[in-house]
Amino acid sequence: MTGDGTHQPGIVERPPAQLVFTAYDLTATDPATARAALTSVLRTWTPAARTLMAGGRLPGNEHDADGLGPAGLTVTIGLGATVLGRAGLDNQLPGQLAPLPAFSTDALDPARGGGDLAVAVCAEDPMVAFSAARQLQRLASPHARARWSQRGFLRTAAAATDPNATPRNLMGQLDGTNNPTPGTATFDTAVWAGADGPAWMAGGTYLVTRRIRMLLDGWDRLSEAGQEHVIGRRKTDGAPLSADPDTATETTPPDLAVTTADGALVIPANAHIRLANPAFHGGVRMFRRGYSYDDGLDATATPDAGLFFQAYQADPRTAFVPVQRTLASSDALTAFIQHTASALFAIPPAPRGGGYLAQPLLET
Amino acid sequence: MTGDGTHQPGIVERPPAQLVFTAYDLTATDPATARAALTSVLRTWTPAARTLMAGGRLPGNEHDADGLGPAGLTVTIGLGATVLGRAGLDNQLPGQLAPLPAFSTDALDPARGGGDLAVAVCAEDPMVAFSAARQLQRLASPHARARWSQRGFLRTAAAATDPNATPRNLMGQLDGTNNPTPGTATFDTAVWAGADGPAWMAGGTYLVTRRIRMLLDGWDRLSEAGQEHVIGRRKTDGAPLSADPDTATETTPPDLAVTTADGALVIPANAHIRLANPAFHGGVRMFRRGYSYDDGLDATATPDAGLFFQAYQADPRTAFVPVQRTLASSDALTAFIQHTASALFAIPPAPRGGGYLAQPLLET
Repeated sequence: MTGDGTHQPGIVERPPAQLVFTAYDLTATDPATARAALTSVLRTWTPAARTLMAGGRLPGNEHDADGLGPAGLTVTIGLGATVLGRAGLDNQLPGQLAPLPAFSTDALDPARGGGDLAVAVCAEDPMVAFSAARQLQRLASPHARARWSQRGFLRTAAAATDPNATPRNLMGQLDGTNNPTPGTATFDTAVWAGADGPAWMAGGTYLVTRRIRMLLDGWDRLSEAGQEHVIGRRKTDGAPLSADPDTATETTPPDLAVTTADGALVIPANAHIRLANPAFHGGVRMFRRGYSYDDGLDATATPDAGLFFQAYQADPRTAFVPVQRTLASSDALTAFIQHTASALFAIPPAPRGGGYLAQPLLET
Repeated sequence: MTGDGTHQPGIVERPPAQLVFTAYDLTATDPATARAALTSVLRTWTPAARTLMAGGRLPGNEHDADGLGPAGLTVTIGLGATVLGRAGLDNQLPGQLAPLPAFSTDALDPARGGGDLAVAVCAEDPMVAFSAARQLQRLASPHARARWSQRGFLRTAAAATDPNATPRNLMGQLDGTNNPTPGTATFDTAVWAGADGPAWMAGGTYLVTRRIRMLLDGWDRLSEAGQEHVIGRRKTDGAPLSADPDTATETTPPDLAVTTADGALVIPANAHIRLANPAFHGGVRMFRRGYSYDDGLDATATPDAGLFFQAYQADPRTAFVPVQRTLASSDALTAFIQHTASALFAIPPAPRGGGYLAQPLLET
């Protein structure tokens, strides 16, 4: 892997336009075989990912990406809780991989969630991303087979007036406002696994993914003011509704206590940014890196599009879980979205030197 | 619409990286209502497409694409044979819209094919493409509702060493070699509707779409030489196998008669380029503008990816139909692909002046 030698790539970089996320299950049925298979897959994937990220080609590759550069390719690899059980490594299971609880608004399809392993491939170019994901899938065979996959997209750097601006989601909202800034102490505390987990995860992080379908027809029937009251921010620029509209910007901190002349909260009691605010959850932050998705029409010819939510965090038990519990109970946005799939993966640190990913886990 | 005032945009331009193709059915159940609805939709779509292609925003738009330029956006609109029947316009039905025959290798899903109307949105940026497709869908409501949709992709210009090079498909093959060149007499004859159709289609063309799933696992088990014998071209650069390997290029004409020392055809009898060669079909050409697609895993967790084939032509009865009949009977590639959906649309000429698309059809 590339990066700073500590963390995996594909986390702190500005997200490129294309995502191909694939979750896998091991095919082995007994622990010894599963552990050997897991080792084999990670031993194979580690140098292959390094080669692909450098713009190189794998032996027997398909030429798909000939004539294309690496296009900012990153490969990020994760392990689900199930794989540790399957490989007889329960004693190394981080508490942070405890199954996410059921939330009252969940409508989860188990076939689209979970998984023993995950590979998130990001690149600015769709062909580069597809080709890398496909080659890694081939290399995993026959030890692991794809369980589910999800394509996602964001705006391209080339089309953007400001490629570093917060991207918009399919509801037209800026999505990622108030994320911690990579390289800061706040980010490090929020994202990187601390000393309260197993040694093999030091320098790693935990990734929660949620496939969130947006009910865009209903959303579009709201006025822009109505949408702003659901979110708590101005649609044009993401400024909080609590701030002076003439001077506020996306980064102006929301003042959740401000009321109108007749005493109503300016940021409503059920506004998304109020309920998601870290202040209500012990100050614990996550780092969101979501992608929009468009899976066309479902069996009833209704558009199936929305957000493939991804959040990196040091401990989901104190970050995603309490936030989502609050959102599921009261968030005004709940009427316009459906969580249709869920997964949680440990993202180990980058391997050191000539090692392979999660080697300290497998060679203990 | 933009373009030269004669043809619709999105046909001759170098294809940008993203495609969102949506087919619609009218909701009306009697001819008078259907004709009024069709007129209303086309009257609405025509200026909306013009605004979007200029990088403008529609009233009530969703801000999705704020901060993004037009990113090469094109909107191409088509009419299926069914809409003419539904709107009581059978007397204006072009013979070129005769239903495609069944081919022996078809495995078509009718829910993913056909349609009264089609909108092909292309752009270099995925957010721009999604947003435009979504806005046009909203404008069509309640007169027309989406029947099927398909996202597609090609390599981005930014990532390509040569953005004008023939793109590769998911089998790693150059795809589009030997296309007629826009602006030539050959192209004009092959693509633009001639005098043998109704007046409202003069300057238009006909679009055949086929959703072609690739059985990539089987394909990848072939050696590169084996793959080259299936296609008839060298994988690295698309040169025909019949030519001197040291000097041949993608544009070297294949010599279908060349044999090896022991008398075998160098381009095998069932090679794809032999059977698809215009010389076997009266010299009639089409203009292919296909996109790769990746729809993730199907219900059996098998990858569903391949080519969304699009071919523009003056008359499918003398172009796509005879070629596909030959391919279905003998093509070596047939073992590695499945045609899973099919559609045929009339692509009217661009409207003149302040008119709307297909106005001469609707105001006769």
